[in-house]
Amino acid sequence: MSAKLTLSQLNALFDHLSTFSTSNHEKGTTRLAYSQVDEQAHEYLITKMKTLGLTVRQDAAGNVFARLAGFEPQLPAVGTGSHIDTVPLGGNYDGVAGVLSGIYALSQFEPGQLKRSLEVVIFRAEESSRFGFSCIGSKILAGQVDAESWRKNKDSSNEDIFQVLDRTRYSSEAVLNQQCELANDYFAAFVELHIEQGKCLEAANKQIGIVTGIAAPIRFCVTVKGHADHSGATPMNQRQDALVASVAIIADIHLAACKESCYGTVGTVGKLDVVPNSMNVIPGEVTFFVDIRGVELDSMLRVEQSMQAAIQKASFDTGTDISVRNISRENPVKLDLNIAKTIEQICLEKEIAYMTMLSGAGHDTMKMASKFPSSMIFIPSVLGISHHVDEFSQFEDIALGAELLKQTLAVLASE
Amino acid sequence: MSAKLTLSQLNALFDHLSTFSTSNHEKGTTRLAYSQVDEQAHEYLITKMKTLGLTVRQDAAGNVFARLAGFEPQLPAVGTGSHIDTVPLGGNYDGVAGVLSGIYALSQFEPGQLKRSLEVVIFRAEESSRFGFSCIGSKILAGQVDAESWRKNKDSSNEDIFQVLDRTRYSSEAVLNQQCELANDYFAAFVELHIEQGKCLEAANKQIGIVTGIAAPIRFCVTVKGHADHSGATPMNQRQDALVASVAIIADIHLAACKESCYGTVGTVGKLDVVPNSMNVIPGEVTFFVDIRGVELDSMLRVEQSMQAAIQKASFDTGTDISVRNISRENPVKLDLNIAKTIEQICLEKEIAYMTMLSGAGHDTMKMASKFPSSMIFIPSVLGISHHVDEFSQFEDIALGAELLKQTLAVLASE
Repeated sequence: MSAKLTLSQLNALFDHLSTFSTSNHEKGTTRLAYSQVDEQAHEYLITKMKTLGLTVRQDAAGNVFARLAGFEPQLPAVGTGSHIDTVPLGGNYDGVAGVLSGIYALSQFEPGQLKRSLEVVIFRAEESSRFGFSCIGSKILAGQVDAESWRKNKDSSNEDIFQVLDRTRYSSEAVLNQQCELANDYFAAFVELHIEQGKCLEAANKQIGIVTGIAAPIRFCVTVKGHADHSGATPMNQRQDALVASVAIIADIHLAACKESCYGTVGTVGKLDVVPNSMNVIPGEVTFFVDIRGVELDSMLRVEQSMQAAIQKASFDTGTDISVRNISRENPVKLDLNIAKTIEQICLEKEIAYMTMLSGAGHDTMKMASKFPSSMIFIPSVLGISHHVDEFSQFEDIALGAELLKQTLAVLASE
Repeated sequence: MSAKLTLSQLNALFDHLSTFSTSNHEKGTTRLAYSQVDEQAHEYLITKMKTLGLTVRQDAAGNVFARLAGFEPQLPAVGTGSHIDTVPLGGNYDGVAGVLSGIYALSQFEPGQLKRSLEVVIFRAEESSRFGFSCIGSKILAGQVDAESWRKNKDSSNEDIFQVLDRTRYSSEAVLNQQCELANDYFAAFVELHIEQGKCLEAANKQIGIVTGIAAPIRFCVTVKGHADHSGATPMNQRQDALVASVAIIADIHLAACKESCYGTVGTVGKLDVVPNSMNVIPGEVTFFVDIRGVELDSMLRVEQSMQAAIQKASFDTGTDISVRNISRENPVKLDLNIAKTIEQICLEKEIAYMTMLSGAGHDTMKMASKFPSSMIFIPSVLGISHHVDEFSQFEDIALGAELLKQTLAVLASE
């Protein structure tokens, strides 16, 4: 027999989950993937979901599946879910909102009430904080295990994901044998609710975002080598100023991304280091990282081309030697428009202020979308803040999202 | 009776002086002002100069004066000199070249041979490495003691210059009472030989630079406050990117300085720090330092005005809050053109490849010039490197400079 979760119980779950953290509450939530508190948080939710009448299993990577059987349980199920690991000193909503809304949604139905089964997935290690790469659990489910590359990514204790799996209580062997990969007909549809992590909804005064695509990053590390000379004794025409070269390139990336912004493309230089970084020495070397994201690959490539041209020109203009290393090149993901229409229809019926939008950040749904028709529901992030102690979403927005998720799952499970 | 120093003895003095250092020889010379090795180096030179027949005195700040009497010793003397303190892990030529060339020059004459007396000065604490401000000895001689401000500048042991003077074996009381200030007719002329610390001579294939002005810096600390948002989830039109604002300002400073380069003005941003400096976070705050130098104040002020206009525009364009703090504003110094002509005449007669030029770096001569007609002779720095273990000047260039200094002093002492 299942028990319905009330909205106030849903709210209390957020508070309780925040106690599984290694950082002081005032500094935000720290629940690193596969850490002791992360294990305990998953155990807590497994127990909770069992008491709600869901059938729970855990795979060899620790991914959690909680199922509510439909009346045609042999049909592909309808999935939802997200993650509960956090960045260090992160918030209590990123990922958590999707998992708890999913549990809430499933708890609103009786077993056998809907045609298809519903299933909440708690994906492991979505954040890249521990191993330097993200969406580990969902990549395993999508059959995207890259053993060679993953073994090179060690955590701060110099362990790779496989060593950590075995030491925790999971099985790297099963993961490497692709035993965790989901069959292509495992889900008929997948919908993840997530906080926006931006301020588009807030700016547009909308409560719901229906996500039609997830941007992927193309990233570069640019190293500019000039010459560190005395700032007073070196005339302007004798300089090889690595920062002057860099600012020209960064200005161009910004302009190129602004030109492509109608496609949702963005370009950012977030990290830049100057050597020797002394007030009276001309910068001899500058290293900076470029993050180009979008859902339209052609648009992203135009920004990249513009950057390459700017690099050539800056190198020529300043006499510096500039090298560019591509550090990632992922494909943007377009989400399922039919599911988006289903969600939109519910919003229209319920008079919910919604908008369709793109996700600039990556999510487990990118991996689910490689196998199943998938969609995402965004709820507002106050001031667009995430990965920070100030990350916050209004409970009325969470509650509305959870309700919308419930109704979306119900429609999808009836198809 | 005086003894003539030979060129090979002069060369050996460089080697011997480099042994007064707290750093391993391979890492360069470390002789911090008023440190034990700095005291020992001064003692060594005092003894050396006495054996050369010079009359040596030391003032209450430790400045050393070594005099060769002229046949009209009541006339104002002709001075030369520089400093022997170094930056940490510095070279063996910055300052030292001027002191040793001065000693060499004086040793070439007999007492009473020239009309005016000659005097070598070894100024103390020219480098700002210990107390954060420079030319301490020469400022004391010029009557430019700023007790209040100097007391705020502590060394790494939390002592100010006055405490260090008293603890060493000098007298802060005498310094504060201006007892060290030189009378306005102490010198008839002052000439300092120094390494260029730039690569203008090398680029022009000249052995001697005759310095007609010493640039002074106007320095600013610029703080740009934007908003640290997610690089993927924040569209271009919702950003307050502190780095995008900064690169526009830095590009403008560079352009403005290039426009003013015909006046010898330079503009540099050598230090820049990004917060939080993470690849996937839009820079929320950037702090950078601006160093504008020149000998034409109007030209420097045009660069400053351009920077201020660029800051206003960047703040408007990016929605960032930008504050500017002026951290120093010194006046450039024009050196004496008659002495320069004297040096030029000798160069023409001796067929020495020379050029007139500006000094971008500061020197003790700036302070001497506030009281006496002053000039400087530059010799080439290989690759323009200084304040570094690789600082080097060819001995043939040093020897030529010392010879030119000797002849210049002889002409000036005969006037």
